[in-house]
Amino acid sequence: MGGAAIRVLPSRAARAVNLLRTVQYTHPPSCPCHSNPNHHHATPSAASTVSRFADRASSLTGSGRRGYATPRDPAQQKEYAFEMAASSIRFGPGVTREVGMDLRNMGVKRVCVVTDPTVDRLEAMRQVREALDGQGVEYRVYAGVRIEPKDYSIKEAIEWARPYAPDAFLAVGGGSVIDTAKLMNLYTCYPDADFMDFVNAPLGKGRPVDRKLKPLIAVPTTAGTGSETTGTAIFDLASRRAKTGVAHRNLKPTLGICDPLNTRTMPAAVRASSGLDVLCHSLESWTAIPFNERTPRPTNPILRPAYQGANPISDIFSLNALRQTVKYLPRSVRDPDDMEAQTEMLLASTLAGVGFGNAGVHLCHGMSYPISGQNPGYRHAGYEVDSPIIPHGVSVAVSAPAVFRFTGPSNPDRHLAAAEAFGVDISNVKRESAGDVLADALTKFLADLGDQPAGLKQLGFSREHIDELVEGTIPQARVLMLAPGLAKELEQERDQLRRLFEDALEH
Amino acid sequence: MGGAAIRVLPSRAARAVNLLRTVQYTHPPSCPCHSNPNHHHATPSAASTVSRFADRASSLTGSGRRGYATPRDPAQQKEYAFEMAASSIRFGPGVTREVGMDLRNMGVKRVCVVTDPTVDRLEAMRQVREALDGQGVEYRVYAGVRIEPKDYSIKEAIEWARPYAPDAFLAVGGGSVIDTAKLMNLYTCYPDADFMDFVNAPLGKGRPVDRKLKPLIAVPTTAGTGSETTGTAIFDLASRRAKTGVAHRNLKPTLGICDPLNTRTMPAAVRASSGLDVLCHSLESWTAIPFNERTPRPTNPILRPAYQGANPISDIFSLNALRQTVKYLPRSVRDPDDMEAQTEMLLASTLAGVGFGNAGVHLCHGMSYPISGQNPGYRHAGYEVDSPIIPHGVSVAVSAPAVFRFTGPSNPDRHLAAAEAFGVDISNVKRESAGDVLADALTKFLADLGDQPAGLKQLGFSREHIDELVEGTIPQARVLMLAPGLAKELEQERDQLRRLFEDALEH
Repeated sequence: MGGAAIRVLPSRAARAVNLLRTVQYTHPPSCPCHSNPNHHHATPSAASTVSRFADRASSLTGSGRRGYATPRDPAQQKEYAFEMAASSIRFGPGVTREVGMDLRNMGVKRVCVVTDPTVDRLEAMRQVREALDGQGVEYRVYAGVRIEPKDYSIKEAIEWARPYAPDAFLAVGGGSVIDTAKLMNLYTCYPDADFMDFVNAPLGKGRPVDRKLKPLIAVPTTAGTGSETTGTAIFDLASRRAKTGVAHRNLKPTLGICDPLNTRTMPAAVRASSGLDVLCHSLESWTAIPFNERTPRPTNPILRPAYQGANPISDIFSLNALRQTVKYLPRSVRDPDDMEAQTEMLLASTLAGVGFGNAGVHLCHGMSYPISGQNPGYRHAGYEVDSPIIPHGVSVAVSAPAVFRFTGPSNPDRHLAAAEAFGVDISNVKRESAGDVLADALTKFLADLGDQPAGLKQLGFSREHIDELVEGTIPQARVLMLAPGLAKELEQERDQLRRLFEDALEH
Repeated sequence: MGGAAIRVLPSRAARAVNLLRTVQYTHPPSCPCHSNPNHHHATPSAASTVSRFADRASSLTGSGRRGYATPRDPAQQKEYAFEMAASSIRFGPGVTREVGMDLRNMGVKRVCVVTDPTVDRLEAMRQVREALDGQGVEYRVYAGVRIEPKDYSIKEAIEWARPYAPDAFLAVGGGSVIDTAKLMNLYTCYPDADFMDFVNAPLGKGRPVDRKLKPLIAVPTTAGTGSETTGTAIFDLASRRAKTGVAHRNLKPTLGICDPLNTRTMPAAVRASSGLDVLCHSLESWTAIPFNERTPRPTNPILRPAYQGANPISDIFSLNALRQTVKYLPRSVRDPDDMEAQTEMLLASTLAGVGFGNAGVHLCHGMSYPISGQNPGYRHAGYEVDSPIIPHGVSVAVSAPAVFRFTGPSNPDRHLAAAEAFGVDISNVKRESAGDVLADALTKFLADLGDQPAGLKQLGFSREHIDELVEGTIPQARVLMLAPGLAKELEQERDQLRRLFEDALEH
């Protein structure tokens, strides 16, 4: 979103141009903030589960009805509000079959069903076809979604959808499918938009989604991305060799249909890596900077990013998702017939989706994109693919011990609470050790889960790769801005990232 | 909703007619369930935070891809899914002022602003007017909402709105205002509907809301109803001397704007009673029967009631709201300048709204309607009104100790967890005593809060009122169906309610 625009590599002319374009959205000439005396200048406060509103609240107590601070430059002002928006969720074994009735209830005439070639052959898609046929809903299936989508694979999908002109979308698959469907919906509703218009700044222009999109129903077949609840769509921008995406809460699906029968088809390795994605979604959103530390304050609510920092509602989702993942992921990976564990993992994935969808992720995700993209040749066991692959969940979890060791001092209480969720007795742990204790708990959890690399070295990375990994991380401004303790000054940030990657070589 | 139709007083012919009409919605001639082999017959399971999916999950483990149980009569089948739907929420001190930009972002042309005569003079409405004027949004203000609305006051409001033909609604006030605005929106979008069409069965026809309504933004000025997040609107049906309402998730506001600056205007007595409403929302939704014990299973997802029973997502909201209310309500009542406590209470109210909006309430609310409606003459201190009044929150809380003593055996673990939220050391409490322990904790909490009646006697009720109170409770089928331990057989239910009211005379 626009907020990310302040973080830009000065050496790259192209980015500067993009930045200027972005500024048009975040700082319109007639800034509505200056006509808004009700915008408070909040006193900064450390995130704390105890007095999360206290500082702001006390700054208000003394003020009369109109005793508000003078507005300042909004780019300097901190945020004072948070939003919680999530797709409606339906959850239950067998609910996939209700989707035909849902689309008929919506009065929909032409549905674009989006899936990938593998899921297209699975029971989930068979159920979907039967449900649509049974209700006489007209649809066409686009089964060409690429796993880990690229900008060009998404453009192909959009070109496919435009002439069909569907009045609803139905995504059946993992995060790649749901994200692709979101973008098919977006660019079908904005037929004249340039593809980069909505892409996150600084790589794209970060234009907000200000139209109502078509209904999108998402049926996840993995317990991982939580994409069925979020307004985020991630892809590789091939020309820049960078992961980026589009993020706006108006992009979120209308309804997520979470059917534990659909996740039974995941191979064990996929269950493990998608579960690790859930783990990091919950840990990162729980430890992200608090919403009221984020700058700039948006001048219009439509500019408030979905990745807004930790807040009292996202906290509830994130911490619950963390506890559930710690409890059920090992069982789910160990036993493909443990339906209780798989059901709870699907729920955890959705809860974590609401959590990070309204708070954001930070370093594990920011660092994961170059890790996956610059893969020196690692092929993760259990993935039946022809080329090297570091699955998304593996690439986020591999740096997690290093990341939370680094972020620990920013908010020891939260890191201790997270360590407690892993079963650590924190009664005698010093607050200074909070990051280390959580890092150790994570290392042990990953080792016990099995088949996980114990650091970047086991993926084939070594010290000489680190500079490129750092440069690949820097553009992830949208998530890095939420990383507690990360410097705003570029050279300092680069040093910190370098040390983080070094620490992540082995754990 | 339709599910309530099975509970009807056989002695009343009119209700039977309504029941038959309702059945048209719940059991259409071509029942889609019979063509749906994926509907499982779930094994009943006690609600439990530990193995909430276990029984169902294990019943699936052995089944092959298509090894589903034979469909039965859906009226006999238990629910197998739950839904979570909530309005988007924006929360922060001063956010009221963003509403003009929100409406402009939506492209809205004519806004119907709904409020009551008191709130119309408060700062909240001044902020709203300034925000709309500042953005050049055309609007008209309907300030005629009646507190504790009646069917006729709502009909008047609808008649006012129809000729104006707004393309959005903006409610500024407490639950009465927000609920009235929901119904203005509903009946403006269904101009040919009879008023009773959408009213909850068995009093009304319980027709589901199957059209998309106009956007509704709700700005609560009390920390109580949580109506900004729910699809429920409650009113008095004057001709029947009964509280009823309309409930469907499509009725929920588009956005709730929760601004702690707006709740500063509540007098202490209003803060207390609306906070007690939050307390009971959270306790009742936390202890409601689990979703998978509810019958009948809906034959179409649009018939799945918003009040669906406790489920894993509502539980998270309800328990968090309970803990926050116990912590902050006493502070909020004691000190009008404790902005932290008031901010947390507004958040608790919203969290509880999401909780009960997706799970439901039961006995405290079901019994409260005749308590308020059959008021023998009690005038609650601190309410500046000309006539006797038992505020809604007082009428729900007064029976709470009796209610949870009664429901305790249905799920001792949940009642113990609730008692723990009140600070009770439950380590040595026997499960058989769970209800008593929670009842005692509630009694103490109410006494410490101050100015609360210690039972129905202090409201002027005595034993001779009980039969009428019971008869006034029986029609609250929609909430009574969620009461754990309440008999389905009418005479037994009547006896249980009689004993509950007796127990509630004094605590």
